Order: sequence, then structure tokens, then C-alpha cells
Amino acid sequence: MAHALTLGRRGQGAVWPNPAVGCVIVAQGRVVGRGWTQPGGRPHAERVALDQAGPAASWATAYVTLEPCAHHGHTPPCADALAAAGVTRVVTAMGDPDARVAGRGHARLRQAGVEVVEGVCEAVARRDHAGFLRRLAEGRPLVTLKLAASFDGRIATASGASRWITGPDARRAVHAMRLTHDAIMVGGGTVRADDPVLTVRGMGQAPRLRVVLSQRLDLPTEGRFAASVADAPLWLLHGPDAPNDRKARWTEAGARCVEVPLADGILDVKAALEHLGQAGLTRVFCEGGGVLAASLLRARLVDRLLGFTAGLALGSDGTPAIGPLGLDTLAGAPRFALHAARSIGGDVLHEWDRLDDGNLTDRLRR
Amino acid sequence: MAHALTLGRRGQGAVWPNPAVGCVIVAQGRVVGRGWTQPGGRPHAERVALDQAGPAASWATAYVTLEPCAHHGHTPPCADALAAAGVTRVVTAMGDPDARVAGRGHARLRQAGVEVVEGVCEAVARRDHAGFLRRLAEGRPLVTLKLAASFDGRIATASGASRWITGPDARRAVHAMRLTHDAIMVGGGTVRADDPVLTVRGMGQAPRLRVVLSQRLDLPTEGRFAASVADAPLWLLHGPDAPNDRKARWTEAGARCVEVPLADGILDVKAALEHLGQAGLTRVFCEGGGVLAASLLRARLVDRLLGFTAGLALGSDGTPAIGPLGLDTLAGAPRFALHAARSIGGDVLHEWDRLDDGNLTDRLRR
Repeated sequence: MAHALTLGRRGQGAVWPNPAVGCVIVAQGRVVGRGWTQPGGRPHAERVALDQAGPAASWATAYVTLEPCAHHGHTPPCADALAAAGVTRVVTAMGDPDARVAGRGHARLRQAGVEVVEGVCEAVARRDHAGFLRRLAEGRPLVTLKLAASFDGRIATASGASRWITGPDARRAVHAMRLTHDAIMVGGGTVRADDPVLTVRGMGQAPRLRVVLSQRLDLPTEGRFAASVADAPLWLLHGPDAPNDRKARWTEAGARCVEVPLADGILDVKAALEHLGQAGLTRVFCEGGGVLAASLLRARLVDRLLGFTAGLALGSDGTPAIGPLGLDTLAGAPRFALHAARSIGGDVLHEWDRLDDGNLTDRLRR
Repeated sequence: MAHALTLGRRGQGAVWPNPAVGCVIVAQGRVVGRGWTQPGGRPHAERVALDQAGPAASWATAYVTLEPCAHHGHTPPCADALAAAGVTRVVTAMGDPDARVAGRGHARLRQAGVEVVEGVCEAVARRDHAGFLRRLAEGRPLVTLKLAASFDGRIATASGASRWITGPDARRAVHAMRLTHDAIMVGGGTVRADDPVLTVRGMGQAPRLRVVLSQRLDLPTEGRFAASVADAPLWLLHGPDAPNDRKARWTEAGARCVEVPLADGILDVKAALEHLGQAGLTRVFCEGGGVLAASLLRARLVDRLLGFTAGLALGSDGTPAIGPLGLDTLAGAPRFALHAARSIGGDVLHEWDRLDDGNLTDRLRR
């Protein structure tokens, strides 16, 4: 199952709205088939592994990171395919809470005489499938908030210098992380300050959707960002007060403009994420800036924090990584549980999960 | 030698102005004596180990983390004692740059017919003896700056709430770190904001000197801090403009008031540290606040950064861990090299060394 989970992760970022599943087929102690959900969401992991195994799937055991599907969608049900191939035992990490599956995959296998073992490495699988699960439960994608900052939490000097705070290894890791998400998201202030391209670089061909939240579409019309519209899909989420000429200009350039309502006078980030969820996105990688990060944190919409800490101090006159949160007490602060910490190049990488993820799990289990 | 280094660290914080040395005596493959510099600085590590070994020191090898002393101080020279005890081989981690030793310890041993091997585990020893070396080279103690902050580098909410940002394991580690330093130092603002006691707690009897930098001695005369004057030595470093009645009050309470000159209208932190160096201090643990941290960083007087990062966000309206540094470029920022990063309880601990420590090493080698 650990191998199947590793395979499944290969699909992350490229299979939405589908889950990124991994499958390993073992016959007489040997791996005869390996598969993972292919870009675009199909073929499914089980289909790929079965095709690789061929006749060797007979009397074999299949390890799958999510309950096989039971419905006729674009492809025939994987539960049927496994049974038809002669697989006699299926081990899964967790059930699929999708209403079209929801236990029916396991049931179909058992009806066909296949032995089914559920819940192996379930905690790891729930973390891997967190984006798929979040969208099913709340209609919005998982949000990973990445911040690369100085020892004292600053992303630029008093004069605005910000290239580069972290080292080359950390920056390369960011591109690898972008790759595991369906979309890269930033606020308009970051586009104005950094003029970023927001593409995945140095990782082979892997276009990822880019999402910019900018209330009035006040974005630079020249520079690297403006020149990159054709490099990867670009969605601009703006408010009702965005000028029509700006909308027309960006639409003509190839971007997709989407109106999002305001809340308390600023873009409603919850509505923005729900729009992305409706569009099928399961994993969004937010790279700031401070205003968007604060909006997401205030609305309790950040599922994971990814921090890169560099060994330099920039001082309180530098640009803060997260804008004002208006907290009175520590108890009111958004809290996260440490998932992992390690050094990367000369920087520290620390990953945190939101503390109430257990609730989501419980909700989906019921 | 690794064992001798571990033993030597036991003396850190309790032996100033002496170095915290470790010594292991091995005869016929067995450890027959172990010693480390005792509280107050004597007996020396070699003397303790020799006394433990007794006649077994004959024909033995001694591993010492620093060149044995060659001068008659409060105790006879350790180089002579090792030779007299019949030790036939001495392995040292590094030479002692103290002008009274400076190679004479190694020379005396060789003159007595003892084989000497130098420079074993030297890099580790230089790090362990960094405070002793810093004082010899620059007349000031090593400065470790500790900051326990939120994910975004804040030490309190917008309303000032700060207890506790980090968890109990991290807070206990702070007490263990205080123990390895000769003095705990904070700025007056931290005393006013937190009313701290600044003692080592939960680590047995280990009083450490407390140093507060407060230009005008504007410190609370009631509360936990004021009530703790008798708990451990307290030095108050103030400016020439501190009112006499405040000096008199704190002196009468049992604190030692020391005048330090101003530089650019605020306390001269370099002069303050040089005063501590003249007094014999080798390792100072600075716990903030933001103003003192910024002063030390601006003056390039921070040798080590110790960061505790907690999994909560406090926002840019929270209290910054480090005050303004007035940086224009990233190249001008004080930079540190990562020494280690790990999780501690639910927090991340990251340790950094100043990047020009190599210079110090070179300077002492010449």
C-alpha cells in the first residue's frame, strides 16, 4: 500500500476533479502491475495496473489507495474490471465518499466473490486525498498557503528588495510543490510587486492553472506577467467593481475573467474558492501576498501552511508575510499542527496542517 | 574525543571566564577517568579525570577538548599534571589561544616525553568553545539571540497577548539553553511588557546572571520581576541619563547598576557587551525584545540565532520579533548559516550560526 500511495501522488495536480489514485497488483509475491490516475483523470489507476498485469492479474491481490469506482462514467467501473480480470483480493486505504461510489465499489467486489480489506494506511491516504475530500465535503479546493520568509517573517526589505530570500534548493522545491497542485493562486498586490510568471519550471511539461485575485483588475499590462498569458491558463477573479475595459483587455489577451462578490468591501475569498471548487479544482497553492494570506486565514480557509525560513533578518520595517488579522487573544489565532520540519539547502522547510482536519474526516465518515 | 566534548558541555554557563573543557582518560581500551571543568572554573577537567583514574593513568591516553594549561594560576599546570601522572599520549581537539597557553601546553607535554596529537574533532570543539574564543578575540561574550515566534514572526497579538505562543517542550528547552549560558539578557521593553523572572527553572540549582539593558532604568518596581531581585544576580546596564533615584532604588534592592555610554542616542550595545566581556562573561543568551534584537543585529553582534516557530499566525498587527533594521538591499541583511532544524513538541526549533564565524577561527589561528 505504501508503494501504491507513492504512485498515486504522481497524479496530484493533473487529474482534477478526479482523485489521484495509485494501484499495485501483486501475484505470488511479485508486483505484476502498477498504475496511477493519468493526466486529465483517466484511465484510472486500476485500469492502468490491470493492463500492465494482463493475465497475471488472475488470482492476484490489488492494492488501491481509494475504493474502486462503481459507476459508469467515462470509463466502466473499476470494481467490475478488477473482478473480471480475476483479482481475488482487493486491499483499499479508504472508502470513496463520492455519492456515486460511497461503499458501492467495495460491495460490488464482494458480490463478485472478491475478498476486500479496507482501511490500510488510511491516515496517509486521507492526507493524500485531502483536496478531493475537501471539495466533496465543502465544495472548495484544499488551500496550501506557502510563505518564504526571513527568520523574522518578512518577505522583502524596507525598500522592497525580495530576490532572493531563500536559496536555489528551496526555490526548486516550490516548483515541485506547484506541480502537485491543480492551480497556483496569488493576490493582485503580489503581481504588482513581483511581476511573477507563476508557471512550473524545471519539472518537464506541466502547465498548471494560474489564478489571480484582483478586485479591480489593477494588474500590470506590461512585463513578465502580462507577457505570460499564453504560457499557462490564467483565471482572473475580480469584483463587481472591476472596470469593463480592463476585463475586455485581459479577456482578449487570453485570460478568463470571473466576477466574484465582495464581502465587507473586499473580494469574498470563500466565494472565490467555491467558484474554483465548482470548476472542479481540488488543490490550490497560494503564494501570497500578505493581504490574500490574511483574508484566507481570517476566513479559516487555509488547510496547510508551508513555510520556508531563511537565515537572515529583515526587521520590522520589512514587508510582513501575512497582513493584519485583528486578533485580541492567542486563543483566537488560526492554529496548525506540525506535519514535518527539515532543512532544505540552507533554509528550513516546515509543513503544518490545520488543526480541525479531523472534523472533516469525521464528517465524511458519517 | 566525542565523549570528552559531551562532558565538556556540562560546564557551559557555570565556568566563566574559563573554558568548559572535557577530558577522558583511556588505559588499555578502558575509560579510567572522566572529568569536566567544575562550576566556578576549577578544578580543571584534566585534574578531575586524573584524580578519578589514580594509578591507572600510567601509560594511558588522555583526550582533552582544549590544549592543557601551562601556567601556574589558581592550580598547577595541567600539562605538568598529565605528564606527572604517567600519561604517555595526549590527544587534543584544538590549541588554547589564551596568551598564557598558546602552544606552551602542547610543548611542555612533548618536552616531558608525552606524545601529542592535535586537532581531533576541531570544528566541533571550536563551536563548543566559541564563547571563550569570542571573548579572547574581541573582548565580548558570544551572543545567542533566541526568538520564540508565530509562523509569521510575531511575539504577541495586536492586543499584546503572548502567553504562550510555543508549547511546553519548547519552553522547557529554553530553560535548558539558559543553563548553557553565563547570563540571560533582555531589554527594558521586555521587562515592562512581560514582567519576566529570567531564572533557570526545572533544571536543578543553577543560578545564572541576569542582565537587563534599560537606558533610563524605566523598569516596574512591583510585580514578578521586581520581586525576583534576590533569586539570582541582576545587573542593570543603563545610560548616563538614568535618574539617580532609580539607580539608588535598584542598588538598594540588590541589583548592580552599570553605566554604559550612548551611541546615536541609545544604549551602545557594543560597549555593553564589552563591559560583560571585561567582567569575564563568555556566553550571553539574549531573549529580546524586538528593540534590543534589532540593535544587536544592526551592530553585527549576534553570533547565533535560535528560533522557535509555532503553528499559529498572528498577523502584521501583532508585535514583531525584531525591530526596524533600515535595510535597503538583501545583501545588507545580517545573514546566518543553518546549523540544525528539528521539531520540538509541536514547534520547530532552528539554530543558525553567523556566517563570518570562519573569520574568527582564522584570526585565532594566525
